[in-house]
Amino acid sequence: MVTEADIPMCKVVLANRIAQGLLAEVSEGLKKFNKTPLLVGFLSSADPAARVYAEWTGKTCRENGFKFELREVDREELEDALIAANNDDTVDGIMVYYPIFNDRQDQYLQQIVDVSKDVEGLSHKYIFNMYQNIRFLDPHATKKSILPCTPLAVIKILEYLQVYNTFLPYGNRLHGHTVTVINRSEVVGRPLAALLANDGACVYSVDIKDVQQFHRGEGLRKRRHEVTEKPGWTLENCLPQSDVVISGVPGKEYKVPVHLLREGAVCINFSSDKNFGPEVKEKASIYVPAIGKVTISVLLRNLLRIVQNRTETDTQVEKQVEKEGNIEIATPDK
Amino acid sequence: MVTEADIPMCKVVLANRIAQGLLAEVSEGLKKFNKTPLLVGFLSSADPAARVYAEWTGKTCRENGFKFELREVDREELEDALIAANNDDTVDGIMVYYPIFNDRQDQYLQQIVDVSKDVEGLSHKYIFNMYQNIRFLDPHATKKSILPCTPLAVIKILEYLQVYNTFLPYGNRLHGHTVTVINRSEVVGRPLAALLANDGACVYSVDIKDVQQFHRGEGLRKRRHEVTEKPGWTLENCLPQSDVVISGVPGKEYKVPVHLLREGAVCINFSSDKNFGPEVKEKASIYVPAIGKVTISVLLRNLLRIVQNRTETDTQVEKQVEKEGNIEIATPDK
Repeated sequence: MVTEADIPMCKVVLANRIAQGLLAEVSEGLKKFNKTPLLVGFLSSADPAARVYAEWTGKTCRENGFKFELREVDREELEDALIAANNDDTVDGIMVYYPIFNDRQDQYLQQIVDVSKDVEGLSHKYIFNMYQNIRFLDPHATKKSILPCTPLAVIKILEYLQVYNTFLPYGNRLHGHTVTVINRSEVVGRPLAALLANDGACVYSVDIKDVQQFHRGEGLRKRRHEVTEKPGWTLENCLPQSDVVISGVPGKEYKVPVHLLREGAVCINFSSDKNFGPEVKEKASIYVPAIGKVTISVLLRNLLRIVQNRTETDTQVEKQVEKEGNIEIATPDK
Repeated sequence: MVTEADIPMCKVVLANRIAQGLLAEVSEGLKKFNKTPLLVGFLSSADPAARVYAEWTGKTCRENGFKFELREVDREELEDALIAANNDDTVDGIMVYYPIFNDRQDQYLQQIVDVSKDVEGLSHKYIFNMYQNIRFLDPHATKKSILPCTPLAVIKILEYLQVYNTFLPYGNRLHGHTVTVINRSEVVGRPLAALLANDGACVYSVDIKDVQQFHRGEGLRKRRHEVTEKPGWTLENCLPQSDVVISGVPGKEYKVPVHLLREGAVCINFSSDKNFGPEVKEKASIYVPAIGKVTISVLLRNLLRIVQNRTETDTQVEKQVEKEGNIEIATPDK
């Protein structure tokens, strides 16, 4: 009964399945607290997508043992409302549905949210740590720095798919992988390329205007990634080399040129549009068509972490950090 | 305390460590028997290396709960001695230290050993199953076919290193990997290339005279690998594409050109000479310098399997197989 397979051997993995594991982990962590953490969401835009996302956050919070409160605030009053939430001990985490002003003022507002309540990892301190490959907030490596939700969701997916090789030491588990990330936005594409390269991958970050390589160099000797321009490069150079392809281009028109994919590549779409046509299954070994449910699980995971980081505050340690005024690199699990 | 690593991030993995896990597995399996299996080794050549290997087999057998008996036989009497061992119920496994005549007569002798006692997997039936990607001896998929020790040792190493992705279905766990195997001998290189390709890898099999690709095709639609000549190809084409490089070239002169390796490649040497210079650590993510101890563990694993296959013989099943006269494909663990 020897037969040839009439369908290609591509495993399609839905975000829901991956999210379940993360939510179970969050639920375990939550049991250790004697309070129910409160996440407050600020809605200051009329964008119906923002409202849908806010409602979805609320639902997921409540289903998983967190409290959620949506505060609808006129955008001119948002700054004061954020400061009030910062100072309110009953508020554990703050998230803001961007865009609001859709200009530099949004970046200003991101820095208003107190670092210790920033579940989205948008504070400069967290962003700095991420790009610098500094993984902890304290010299004793007990408090993990917070990573932005969507890039971290992609990493959690790659861990789930065993693209991260746990046989390699923590911090180098993508060594030997070549990854193409299509989109270099400040919110997802660029931080994602940096995180993957910090974990050892050779990353081609592709945007409309150019291709950049993010890498820690031969033998991963560098402690953090460096960025190199690849003049003249296009997807034709990147895709045939990449065993992982991650795309997040907005718009229904954009499609990744599947014919350029390496046979057996792992393909992940983080755009709300389908960047891969159905023919991706002809070539990929694994295809993840959407990641939204993982992203929201990561948000709750960040909320839990932030509460943990605050709860475990040891005054002695804190003082020491302030005195020494620096941060160390250490290596336990992400 | 931010420092750059002054040494490259290559993990050197010794065969001993991998062998321990396999021997523990064998030891567990052995507990289920109420007898101590006997392996008989036949030494008919004056080659001192063969004697050393025979003594090493004996030591490893005894240390792991097996009996070993070395029979030194004049090569002209070997055929009769093998037939006697085939017919002797106290003998569980037979191995022969080749080369003996070093010509076609050696292949003839390999087929004299009874299939049910062939621990080295050299019988035509096993070799046929291996190339045809037929993994079981019976239609109920309870009896695994026997694979030759050295190629199987390399596979066990790749499983240990998590290059096999257990997230993918059994039989496709190398999907997306590109492997170069340097050496295409009938005993190791060619069967190894076939096994890796049957498990989903795109394999470049490199020998002095040419390069061949072993692969199950786009989307792994083919049930077993096919072989394609790559005219004009050399290591310059293969190595930069390969995330795994396995070399087994005899002779102290041969060295794999490390400068052609892909950054972060997994490198395995199965030659008794060092095919990789020390500079391999500058580029590899994982380097396995020798595999001998894994090979001998796999030999014991095969011996155990052969005893199991014989013990579990269900007369009804056997009769059915003979009646149907064919073999099915099934998918449990290797």
